[in-house]
Amino acid sequence: MRRLEPVLILAALLFSPRADADEGMWLFNRPPSKQLKDRYGFEPGKEWLEHVQKSCLRVSTGGSGSIVSADGLVMTNHHVASDILAKLSTKDNDLLARGFFAPTRAEEAKCPDVELLVLWNIEDVTERVMGAAVPSMSTAEAQGARRKMMAAIEQESKEKSGMQSEVVTLYQGGRYHLYQYKRFTDIRLVFAPDKQAAFFGGDNDNFEYPRYCLDVTFLRIYENDRPLRPDHFLKWSRKGCLEGDLVFVAGHPGRTERLFTNDHLEFLRDVQYPMSLLRLWRREVQLATFRGRSEEWARIAEDDFFGVQNSRKAYTGLMAGILDPAIMNEKAQAERRLKAFVWGDGERTAKWGDAWDRVADSQKTATEQYERFLALGRLGLALGSDLCGIAKDLVRATAEKEKPNTERLREYIDANLETLEFQLFSPAPIYPELEVDRIESHLSFMAELLGGGHELLKLALAGRSPRARAEELVSGCTLTEVENRRKLYEGGKSAVDTCSDPMIRFMKSLDPEARALRKLWEDKVDSPQREGYAKLAAAKFALEGENVYPDATFTLRLAYGTVKGYEENGQKVAPFTAIAGLYERCEQRNGVFPFNLDPRWVSARSKLHQDTPFNFVHTCDIIGGNSGSPTIDKKGEVVGLIFDGNIQSLVLDICYTDVQSRAVSVDSRALIEALRNVYGAGVIAEELLGSQP
Amino acid sequence: MRRLEPVLILAALLFSPRADADEGMWLFNRPPSKQLKDRYGFEPGKEWLEHVQKSCLRVSTGGSGSIVSADGLVMTNHHVASDILAKLSTKDNDLLARGFFAPTRAEEAKCPDVELLVLWNIEDVTERVMGAAVPSMSTAEAQGARRKMMAAIEQESKEKSGMQSEVVTLYQGGRYHLYQYKRFTDIRLVFAPDKQAAFFGGDNDNFEYPRYCLDVTFLRIYENDRPLRPDHFLKWSRKGCLEGDLVFVAGHPGRTERLFTNDHLEFLRDVQYPMSLLRLWRREVQLATFRGRSEEWARIAEDDFFGVQNSRKAYTGLMAGILDPAIMNEKAQAERRLKAFVWGDGERTAKWGDAWDRVADSQKTATEQYERFLALGRLGLALGSDLCGIAKDLVRATAEKEKPNTERLREYIDANLETLEFQLFSPAPIYPELEVDRIESHLSFMAELLGGGHELLKLALAGRSPRARAEELVSGCTLTEVENRRKLYEGGKSAVDTCSDPMIRFMKSLDPEARALRKLWEDKVDSPQREGYAKLAAAKFALEGENVYPDATFTLRLAYGTVKGYEENGQKVAPFTAIAGLYERCEQRNGVFPFNLDPRWVSARSKLHQDTPFNFVHTCDIIGGNSGSPTIDKKGEVVGLIFDGNIQSLVLDICYTDVQSRAVSVDSRALIEALRNVYGAGVIAEELLGSQP
Repeated sequence: MRRLEPVLILAALLFSPRADADEGMWLFNRPPSKQLKDRYGFEPGKEWLEHVQKSCLRVSTGGSGSIVSADGLVMTNHHVASDILAKLSTKDNDLLARGFFAPTRAEEAKCPDVELLVLWNIEDVTERVMGAAVPSMSTAEAQGARRKMMAAIEQESKEKSGMQSEVVTLYQGGRYHLYQYKRFTDIRLVFAPDKQAAFFGGDNDNFEYPRYCLDVTFLRIYENDRPLRPDHFLKWSRKGCLEGDLVFVAGHPGRTERLFTNDHLEFLRDVQYPMSLLRLWRREVQLATFRGRSEEWARIAEDDFFGVQNSRKAYTGLMAGILDPAIMNEKAQAERRLKAFVWGDGERTAKWGDAWDRVADSQKTATEQYERFLALGRLGLALGSDLCGIAKDLVRATAEKEKPNTERLREYIDANLETLEFQLFSPAPIYPELEVDRIESHLSFMAELLGGGHELLKLALAGRSPRARAEELVSGCTLTEVENRRKLYEGGKSAVDTCSDPMIRFMKSLDPEARALRKLWEDKVDSPQREGYAKLAAAKFALEGENVYPDATFTLRLAYGTVKGYEENGQKVAPFTAIAGLYERCEQRNGVFPFNLDPRWVSARSKLHQDTPFNFVHTCDIIGGNSGSPTIDKKGEVVGLIFDGNIQSLVLDICYTDVQSRAVSVDSRALIEALRNVYGAGVIAEELLGSQP
Repeated sequence: MRRLEPVLILAALLFSPRADADEGMWLFNRPPSKQLKDRYGFEPGKEWLEHVQKSCLRVSTGGSGSIVSADGLVMTNHHVASDILAKLSTKDNDLLARGFFAPTRAEEAKCPDVELLVLWNIEDVTERVMGAAVPSMSTAEAQGARRKMMAAIEQESKEKSGMQSEVVTLYQGGRYHLYQYKRFTDIRLVFAPDKQAAFFGGDNDNFEYPRYCLDVTFLRIYENDRPLRPDHFLKWSRKGCLEGDLVFVAGHPGRTERLFTNDHLEFLRDVQYPMSLLRLWRREVQLATFRGRSEEWARIAEDDFFGVQNSRKAYTGLMAGILDPAIMNEKAQAERRLKAFVWGDGERTAKWGDAWDRVADSQKTATEQYERFLALGRLGLALGSDLCGIAKDLVRATAEKEKPNTERLREYIDANLETLEFQLFSPAPIYPELEVDRIESHLSFMAELLGGGHELLKLALAGRSPRARAEELVSGCTLTEVENRRKLYEGGKSAVDTCSDPMIRFMKSLDPEARALRKLWEDKVDSPQREGYAKLAAAKFALEGENVYPDATFTLRLAYGTVKGYEENGQKVAPFTAIAGLYERCEQRNGVFPFNLDPRWVSARSKLHQDTPFNFVHTCDIIGGNSGSPTIDKKGEVVGLIFDGNIQSLVLDICYTDVQSRAVSVDSRALIEALRNVYGAGVIAEELLGSQP
């Protein structure tokens, strides 16, 4: 499943696609017009682009979505909405497992803390940001000056337009674009299927194909307590798509690493991927153990468990890809070509010749610091616990708010406070048993990473074992009550400084260490990387022309491709599956979990058109974060819903290939069929289709 | 479950027990007579000891057992016999899951490659071994000379007595004892329950208490195609034991680390345990994925999966224990006392003062080399695959047999060849799919440990990805056929050298690296440790007297203790559970796996005496390897069967405690009740009881 793992995005690169492949995650203000015309004879006009852009949205849980009716209906994936579904569930009403349907508007359920962002305007602010740094500054100083200017531009934009404003660093510093978003926070749940239908085949079939998943959830945007009447929404295709059709995906790919130097790829291969896997393996086993304790504990840890399994499977594929000599050899060859171009000329060498060394230097620091980086929960000091996250935000926000806006940590500048407060005061439930397990797990992980005698660990454990410390922190914590959070936030730094809540004190004790590491990381890892990659980007522009797209940054992009099967182990894999295949797969595996079916599907069998296309694959260039993106045709109509890539697509993080790699969508026809004939939710189908002439 | 993880045992230490606790894993030729007399007023005579010793046995799958009838019936655990059960299973007849019962002798099933060893004679050979080293030798030379003498003594003993002969290093080199074993290889399966009954509650309840497990398997020893009429066997107690009773455990504890220096414990905490856990987590996840692929794949990987989960839970407990400051503080205090004793006196300082530094030096090398150590599958070059193991033994045995007996790697000296050949030519099934998964897993693990660019990894991968390499090695391997193994073994080194089997060539390519590491490890880790610990042992003798037991070495030991409950979270935990509790626990968890019951148990419910004691706990000092040990009373009669320790007992590896730590046994009365009234196997119950007057 292509949900984004919630990590800080550190790099945004660029590269030019092969002319003969459907490669690229394109900016809406720099679309792949030439490629589309050359390969498909299609020219998307300005209106087409604006309409698609303003119909799509980013979901704060780490995925994508689109507006699909005149009444603000939003389509995304079940696994993108799973955080919402879990938060709306109770011991006796497990929406995540069983699904939800509101036959009337009045029954739609308000989601506690989800935000939807629609990209409304893009403005190039490169000159202002670049101009903030003067030549006499050091690398770190220049980076600081640019960061301040970005905060100032965002604040100014927010004040003028009232819109959520973000300066996005593209081409690793080659371009800076101001993105203004319409922000929606009154979001209500309309429909979700049972998890078995959404995730049929479970971890076993995840990232596999053929598939039979109805991975969808419908939400609705409200404004002033009424359904939104959007300026733009995507119409629904009545006929769907066919093999060979040109299709598009508009969504928010999270992060790619396609122009990384070989040194940087080796860092991924030897440090980042193995340690990410280590974290995921241990957590998967621990969560499986936790979930075994009772049905209720299984329920409250369900979304964590899915997230960990999903990331583990993705990283396993990435690791396998990066250990494949064929892939690394191709990467090495490309690097040799670029080096020959740069080093073959004195002027180019002078301008860009040291780029690789700069990046390599950053890897040395990153490797040395990686254990601490993970021990401190990466640069955001996130330790995988809701209560830790809340305490950390209270400690940091109150401290940062005492500083001038442009001097603050980026996530606490004024332009971001609205979102911060929305999350911080969320009424979503917090489960103490799960919190203890998460914190114990992180503290043990710290011990394994750093060694039991490390000062940082001693600071965190305060003389206790990981289990005893976690129990002490959670049992004494008052932050489960939203009112207590609000009081501390409003009381500011002095209230936090004198607060005796053990979780607040825990976070206060770790904060200086975490800030010191962040400073070091920004100065010794990020800044030299930005310099190095900016040079590499310039060299690549010079070698290959400017017709390039930047690496993914969890911002809106357009991908295109063809509905097309592939070959695997000498067998043809057809592009479409049909509803009949779902029942066959269930029977083949004797209906045993994760291949069992909800009773609604069992009893609906005879009513369903068995040949209705269910899932299909295409060559669009997508990645984690694209989950929930609409798949649309040339008319801009919805023919599908992205929910996964196949196992061969997992290497797309580092390189595009279309030999076997495929994006996987739910077919729009299966969605209509299931809404009508499985879930008795024909009213939603009519809302989707009602927009048709 | 206290099965031994199959690892090389590197250290055997000594320590003296607290006078007020049931501590100790005692040698049969140095029993805890004083403690038993002082604490319990019981004096086991020479005959009592000899009778128990010769009734007990070691199981080659990594556990313990005992002879329990006049017709050579052997009792052990289901989880000790699970390897046997798996090897006797087929796709259509899954003995491991469903159990087995032979109502007649003719139906008893021959086990493919299990060996049972009964310790028959013990002889102190300390002087001969010690005398082999002269003062002019270096540490490594002295160690080599002793090793040669041990091989010579073993060979001489084997030739004279015909018995399996092993020189056991006790007190870390303070004593050397020659153990002569009666060896039995015609072993037949008589009875095993379904796995649900043996392992009720699964991983969830493993190492927990209260418990309700019938973790038993009965085998029978044959000699000359007839049931053995043993000289000694344990009688069955009709009345079982009561709370407060003195009980004994005679079995084979695998490995303890109780007198490790603090430096050495830190090595465990910071290197060995975390990396062992890493290996186990990743493998558990991978095996879960593998098992999800089909019912048959679930079956063939069942025993691997259990073993990994079991070890993971044990290491998790160990890691939690060693991160508990209370435990490490107590250890540090004990070390300070010994240091004060040694360093407070000039003569003692001269003799033993550098012991700690010697051990600390060995940790430095061990830490530096630990990734390579694991990458090469520890010192035995075991990569977790049957085919790799066979190929490795063929490569090494044929090479070693060209050398004089005393010059060989220890596992290939003449005294050990009988066992080697028995294992090497085992007809047990080998599953190519599982082999590919195991090898791919190990190769990926190597990459994660060493980095993708490491020469050793390149050697192992030979230009392929881990998956492609594993497939290539397994698909081309001819060693699944026993005949091919035999031809190579008999053809000797020249046959192996010219053999084109890819697995043989793979092992030949890694062997020099593995041998070099083993040499380094023996010289720089083992030898200084032996020197350091020999000094520490002598110092401890001097401080505390000679009334001590050596650390566990997977050889026969006697432990004693009291049937006794404990307190947990302020609640009393009673020592006994009853059969009624099994049904209650099943109902409480809605009969969902792993809390479901076999239909035989469901239908037997009304026939069973619900108050029959099922499992019970006591304070005997046991550890992994003790699984399958009989629990006996003062008369030497069987009152139970060891199968586990509770979660609090997991720290027994590093220190004994009886506050909450308990050994867990199946009650002898539950065994009789289940044989008669659940499994229709009353004939076995009568055989067990028939020995009674």
